[in-house]
Amino acid sequence: MNSDKSIFASLNRGTPFLGLPGKYKKSDIILFGAPFDGTTSYRPGARFGPAAIRNESFALESYSPYQNRDVYDYKIADIGDLDLPFGNTERVLDMIYQMSSTIHNDGKFPIMVGGEHLVTLPAVRAAAEKYDNLHILHFDAHTDLRDEYLGEKLSHATVLRRCWDIVGDQRIFQFGIRSGDRAEFLWAKEHTAIYQNGFAAMNNALEEIGDAPVYLTIDLDVLDPGYFPGTGTPEAGGVSFIELYGALRSMRNLNMVGMDVTELAPHLDPSYMSTSLAGKVVRELLILAGKNFL
Amino acid sequence: MNSDKSIFASLNRGTPFLGLPGKYKKSDIILFGAPFDGTTSYRPGARFGPAAIRNESFALESYSPYQNRDVYDYKIADIGDLDLPFGNTERVLDMIYQMSSTIHNDGKFPIMVGGEHLVTLPAVRAAAEKYDNLHILHFDAHTDLRDEYLGEKLSHATVLRRCWDIVGDQRIFQFGIRSGDRAEFLWAKEHTAIYQNGFAAMNNALEEIGDAPVYLTIDLDVLDPGYFPGTGTPEAGGVSFIELYGALRSMRNLNMVGMDVTELAPHLDPSYMSTSLAGKVVRELLILAGKNFL
Amino acid sequence: MNSDKSIFASLNRGTPFLGLPGKYKKSDIILFGAPFDGTTSYRPGARFGPAAIRNESFALESYSPYQNRDVYDYKIADIGDLDLPFGNTERVLDMIYQMSSTIHNDGKFPIMVGGEHLVTLPAVRAAAEKYDNLHILHFDAHTDLRDEYLGEKLSHATVLRRCWDIVGDQRIFQFGIRSGDRAEFLWAKEHTAIYQNGFAAMNNALEEIGDAPVYLTIDLDVLDPGYFPGTGTPEAGGVSFIELYGALRSMRNLNMVGMDVTELAPHLDPSYMSTSLAGKVVRELLILAGKNFL
Amino acid sequence: MNSDKSIFASLNRGTPFLGLPGKYKKSDIILFGAPFDGTTSYRPGARFGPAAIRNESFALESYSPYQNRDVYDYKIADIGDLDLPFGNTERVLDMIYQMSSTIHNDGKFPIMVGGEHLVTLPAVRAAAEKYDNLHILHFDAHTDLRDEYLGEKLSHATVLRRCWDIVGDQRIFQFGIRSGDRAEFLWAKEHTAIYQNGFAAMNNALEEIGDAPVYLTIDLDVLDPGYFPGTGTPEAGGVSFIELYGALRSMRNLNMVGMDVTELAPHLDPSYMSTSLAGKVVRELLILAGKNFL
Amino acid sequence: MNSDKSIFASLNRGTPFLGLPGKYKKSDIILFGAPFDGTTSYRPGARFGPAAIRNESFALESYSPYQNRDVYDYKIADIGDLDLPFGNTERVLDMIYQMSSTIHNDGKFPIMVGGEHLVTLPAVRAAAEKYDNLHILHFDAHTDLRDEYLGEKLSHATVLRRCWDIVGDQRIFQFGIRSGDRAEFLWAKEHTAIYQNGFAAMNNALEEIGDAPVYLTIDLDVLDPGYFPGTGTPEAGGVSFIELYGALRSMRNLNMVGMDVTELAPHLDPSYMSTSLAGKVVRELLILAGKNFL
Amino acid sequence: MNSDKSIFASLNRGTPFLGLPGKYKKSDIILFGAPFDGTTSYRPGARFGPAAIRNESFALESYSPYQNRDVYDYKIADIGDLDLPFGNTERVLDMIYQMSSTIHNDGKFPIMVGGEHLVTLPAVRAAAEKYDNLHILHFDAHTDLRDEYLGEKLSHATVLRRCWDIVGDQRIFQFGIRSGDRAEFLWAKEHTAIYQNGFAAMNNALEEIGDAPVYLTIDLDVLDPGYFPGTGTPEAGGVSFIELYGALRSMRNLNMVGMDVTELAPHLDPSYMSTSLAGKVVRELLILAGKNFL
Repeated sequence: MNSDKSIFASLNRGTPFLGLPGKYKKSDIILFGAPFDGTTSYRPGARFGPAAIRNESFALESYSPYQNRDVYDYKIADIGDLDLPFGNTERVLDMIYQMSSTIHNDGKFPIMVGGEHLVTLPAVRAAAEKYDNLHILHFDAHTDLRDEYLGEKLSHATVLRRCWDIVGDQRIFQFGIRSGDRAEFLWAKEHTAIYQNGFAAMNNALEEIGDAPVYLTIDLDVLDPGYFPGTGTPEAGGVSFIELYGALRSMRNLNMVGMDVTELAPHLDPSYMSTSLAGKVVRELLILAGKNFL
Repeated sequence: MNSDKSIFASLNRGTPFLGLPGKYKKSDIILFGAPFDGTTSYRPGARFGPAAIRNESFALESYSPYQNRDVYDYKIADIGDLDLPFGNTERVLDMIYQMSSTIHNDGKFPIMVGGEHLVTLPAVRAAAEKYDNLHILHFDAHTDLRDEYLGEKLSHATVLRRCWDIVGDQRIFQFGIRSGDRAEFLWAKEHTAIYQNGFAAMNNALEEIGDAPVYLTIDLDVLDPGYFPGTGTPEAGGVSFIELYGALRSMRNLNMVGMDVTELAPHLDPSYMSTSLAGKVVRELLILAGKNFL
Repeated sequence: MNSDKSIFASLNRGTPFLGLPGKYKKSDIILFGAPFDGTTSYRPGARFGPAAIRNESFALESYSPYQNRDVYDYKIADIGDLDLPFGNTERVLDMIYQMSSTIHNDGKFPIMVGGEHLVTLPAVRAAAEKYDNLHILHFDAHTDLRDEYLGEKLSHATVLRRCWDIVGDQRIFQFGIRSGDRAEFLWAKEHTAIYQNGFAAMNNALEEIGDAPVYLTIDLDVLDPGYFPGTGTPEAGGVSFIELYGALRSMRNLNMVGMDVTELAPHLDPSYMSTSLAGKVVRELLILAGKNFL
Repeated sequence: MNSDKSIFASLNRGTPFLGLPGKYKKSDIILFGAPFDGTTSYRPGARFGPAAIRNESFALESYSPYQNRDVYDYKIADIGDLDLPFGNTERVLDMIYQMSSTIHNDGKFPIMVGGEHLVTLPAVRAAAEKYDNLHILHFDAHTDLRDEYLGEKLSHATVLRRCWDIVGDQRIFQFGIRSGDRAEFLWAKEHTAIYQNGFAAMNNALEEIGDAPVYLTIDLDVLDPGYFPGTGTPEAGGVSFIELYGALRSMRNLNMVGMDVTELAPHLDPSYMSTSLAGKVVRELLILAGKNFL
Repeated sequence: MNSDKSIFASLNRGTPFLGLPGKYKKSDIILFGAPFDGTTSYRPGARFGPAAIRNESFALESYSPYQNRDVYDYKIADIGDLDLPFGNTERVLDMIYQMSSTIHNDGKFPIMVGGEHLVTLPAVRAAAEKYDNLHILHFDAHTDLRDEYLGEKLSHATVLRRCWDIVGDQRIFQFGIRSGDRAEFLWAKEHTAIYQNGFAAMNNALEEIGDAPVYLTIDLDVLDPGYFPGTGTPEAGGVSFIELYGALRSMRNLNMVGMDVTELAPHLDPSYMSTSLAGKVVRELLILAGKNFL
Repeated sequence: MNSDKSIFASLNRGTPFLGLPGKYKKSDIILFGAPFDGTTSYRPGARFGPAAIRNESFALESYSPYQNRDVYDYKIADIGDLDLPFGNTERVLDMIYQMSSTIHNDGKFPIMVGGEHLVTLPAVRAAAEKYDNLHILHFDAHTDLRDEYLGEKLSHATVLRRCWDIVGDQRIFQFGIRSGDRAEFLWAKEHTAIYQNGFAAMNNALEEIGDAPVYLTIDLDVLDPGYFPGTGTPEAGGVSFIELYGALRSMRNLNMVGMDVTELAPHLDPSYMSTSLAGKVVRELLILAGKNFL
């Protein structure tokens, strides 16, 4: 329905994240939003995630004292949010696929901000078409491995299962998982690498992945709700920001090819600390990705 | 996908509205919820409307001093909410259609609680199949007459246009309308009866409708946001509860065949007054419908 | 348990309403709080009403352009809130009774701020002991005429019935009532004067009351929730502030002997407009009472 | 500190109101924001008003069924918000003055969105320099006529008194006023035309003003808090949106030269209905101003 | 007032926790709610705890990856909430006592969800009547050891002191305690085992308890407010969910005879993470109790 | 503008913190509030911090089990809040300076509760005038070392740079810092001791400070937003209350001469846990200061 060209016509451009002035053509890293929450089964609102992160970046510094880098050190464009329709999941996924695919084909690095977790599926599909042997690093509270949910194959509760349809066995490394039904955990034992205790086993994963291309998908509910209450299905027992940043830092030598951050539902946290944290994660990811281009 | 029989298997039964003890088979009036907000274009949450109304009915009397009747005077069953999937609009509409159709075919009177306004479409379809020459009374702030919205034919912004596809010209009477684009208002002039000043013109409508069968659809945002802030697209300049009740009372001799109440998004109003008011409207509708069965 | 003297020891004194500097002994009008919500059957929080009204009076003028008077024109003391226990309804009512009774016996005029509506019972008891032939003006959304509620005789749902035990038939005039069960409305027809349409019938009441002593009790939910969402059981279809003030003004020649304002639950309205309105009502009542002492 | 030229460099441009594509040079009407709340004496937050109105205009139609006009019928530019400093009231007022003055000098019509009410002072100063015999229409709950507040001459509580310093006696017409201290009301009797009952006396004002140039300043708290809870100092007893629109309509033949809308504090109303209403007022003002340019 | 039989008539049955289909007669473990907050001295709302936990269990899995068990592996009935009166503490406690006693006498295992902490008193009384030498494990931020509070013996601030009246010296083990007055801490040194540093000393307690029957009472404010803000008296410096689960796990060989979870005030946490966490604790307790019946 | 004497006339006295009955003259430690947020660049509201802490102290014990001391063991007066004007930063700072200076000159120990962080500047100035070689311990998420912010020298973003103007190089020890621009961190390397990892390096600081006089300023956003969401610019990755208390405890032998606690914006955290925590910090500081006077 949209050609590669027209997908740019579907972008709503607002004030960019951290005021980043970069344009698509001259940038190495492309940030875009996928404001979709159409399969959210409980509290919706993740559609407002990307706009909230941009807005709240007014109070965020562009410099990271953690990595001693500034996002302005890199060529980054925030091209805005896809203008997604409501009530038509397949068309939404198609538009995200086109956007992701276009970015890959233009030799750039995509970082997508959701939206609910299903937005990861077309982004992974686009990455897998570009890069052989794609591996997935998956940070989440939930397995997301159901084969269907209430009769639907496409759901934020099935998204990693659908990604597995694309990348196959032993390509998905799941961290922070602490919720799912028994069948999902049993299935995971055979098909993915699933870790329940935060990031303790990250070194195993890094070793197994080696220099294979990696897509990183962060469902922000991997964080403990104490640190990140602004999400639709909070699950106690998660990691802290410091632990999440530690995991990101440990991955700095991986061969990253795409990233996303999903499931911020900003209005569920009236203190805005969840939105603020999410923006900080995006900043660290931009710098992490940027190191590929120095 | 669901047969007439199995649609009952898709019902989640909770504590019924006002504790109504009636069962489906022995009841004249059937109350059910359609907790869908999949095409909501701005703030979602109408999916929580039916549950909130039931829950808040703890603080509502079953007796109406307005009509001097008690809902317990009638044979009413609250059969619960349809267990609708997420992300598949057509399947959702099909389930609502089946439920509505089954109720009509069993000779009962359906009152549906949304959810967003698109849930009205299958309910109207089912009523129009049962009753020739169906007329629609439509209370709303918005015309809902776009032919498509962001490329989609099925939307809470197009629902009355889709109902017009079914019932045709001069069958739809729209009250309280105060928002739409210019094209919608121009289109309405030729195809519907549209009134912008509350219910001042109700007598005209009653005369034109006569004894034709009538489906009443209330988008609660017809109320002024001052009285009803708990809705996704509040629009200043609406009617009060007293005016809305006055309109309902004036319709008491119409040949009603079905009703719905939509677009309560309960969490947007932390005082719960919107939910409370919505429950009160449902109570008055139940009594209004009940008079058919005395 | 508390003697007349010691009741003053049970007062928590904070920053007074509108900064009123008056002391008990030299004042004609005594304002005090009864922060009790122990029989609230749904959303509690009325206990925080008095403190919220005082706090919010920071943004309220002491001058009323409606009555062209200033509360500083009168001798008024805000003596603080009773330090009521939790979980012991009878002891709470006893303490309120002692406070009210002491004020009457000292020849002063009590204005009490609740708290839930049950606090009115001991205040009426004290007034009825002081003044023969006490009449009650009752502004409320609810009849409050149940004989018991969940097995309890003392409840915010029974409070006017208990007042009737004290003052008897045709002494209670109820305005704004729009909720109750059928039995309450039937009972009211024989024992009270009950008006459902706002204050339209106020003149009737004024005539019947004549110069008998009057206790005025305002359950603030007599207001429409659109104007006053901050209350535990909002009931659509009420009056506006302008209408409430009009009713108060019409009563300016009555022989008032005591007043109360109840059922503000401030936290249910994050805009604070309910608290602000309640303070404005208290200001108008102070001036109304003050006219007795000029 | 800022020259006429550089004031454009102090604008933060975001997604414009209603997506208006106009540019400054080619437009007749200039919309800009003054996000200042530095003298707010109680609940701050009006600084977020302009951004909230733009953001919420996503759910607002550009077409007004009231005036049967669309804002796209006119040449309008939303040039964004002034990037005002914090903690330096005089510098803020100077920047607003420069912006307003520049717009007047370029022969365009300014519509400013506050911010707190003090932002009106420099806008009035700029208008009075351009137009002789400037009259002011002032819609507000509060007189704003104090000579100083807590020792400060520049305050949202003194702003109309400061405007009077500029325009002098009998040039200010105040509507909707229902709060102030006694001294303010007494002062007003001699120096302004002050009306306490909504807009009942509008015809008097229109007659007295005749064809003199008029600056319209709307403190949105002129509305009843029931319709507009999102403001720092809510004051019961105000007008409805319908009444406010009626007043605006009655002024359509006045010689308007500038307008502002102030005192939306969006976060105080989690239903967003206040922000939505404010945007609707801005839309109607844009069309009202636009009629000058047809 | 209620006989053993009639207490079942006082249950409000809603949608059960995690949809558990079990009936009382055929179940080993009985879950019930005690929605009482009548002695809460500050922010009330714990009465809504049980309903909120059931409602929020929509988003909770029935399977625990921590214990690798599913609540559906056991015979569990959620029999609903006691329909407790308002304003009569003694009658409330009597009803809870009857419910608890009936469950014990029927050879089943009670798990009660509060409500405020005073609900523990009748549950402990019933357990102590059934089991000699009853020990109490008490997780809480507060000592709850006052002898009276504002003159009342029965209070959420005195509940453990009242339990001590029943079980006597050295039978109560208190963990997580970080608030109380000096007298309470001094009294505790002689009469209970009190630990201020989380669960570090759990092994001591386990050793001393041995195989004596144990009642576990969890005031959820033992958790740090960062993880559990939804409670009436938050107290910084508490434990995390992970630490709480660790303590539960360490107790898996104790001779448990009853449990409760109290002091969730759901509306104080608009992110719902507190309610979600509380439901997760209930799930883990159900499985812990279930192991007794395998 | 205010003489030393008159500054006491500018105090608003409410119900004191923890009900402390002490008067200024007979007390060693003076607690006062500086409710100013006039340079807050993002979400204002810190002006309500002092009042909220006092109000919430209703639920706080005066006894600290951490230090095994009660604030009633010391001579402490809570003298209330300065009645600061709005919109005039310099006058505000002057009033705070006078208050602080008076307390020092009377040989008492000041503990100030903000307000935003700029209130620290006049308090430090007063302390530096009294004590030679003043050192500053600064706990914060942000460096606060900009030389100006949006053209202003006086800002909560520049406050420590302005303090450095007073005390000079190597007198400021900054802990918990995790946000700032690159230039601030570079500047800090030469002029302050800045630590990014919580309080790990506290011993270094203690050694370097020795027995020099120390002013302690705590911006509460040094805490992780998970523990303290109620602040205007939350920054993930901070310390816990336990860690903060540990740092305070480690400083118990320092030569403290003044303290402050800033940046609580209470309304941003509807659970009130932030306010509660802030009050607990104040209690611990009072006891810490009190030890000087035993």
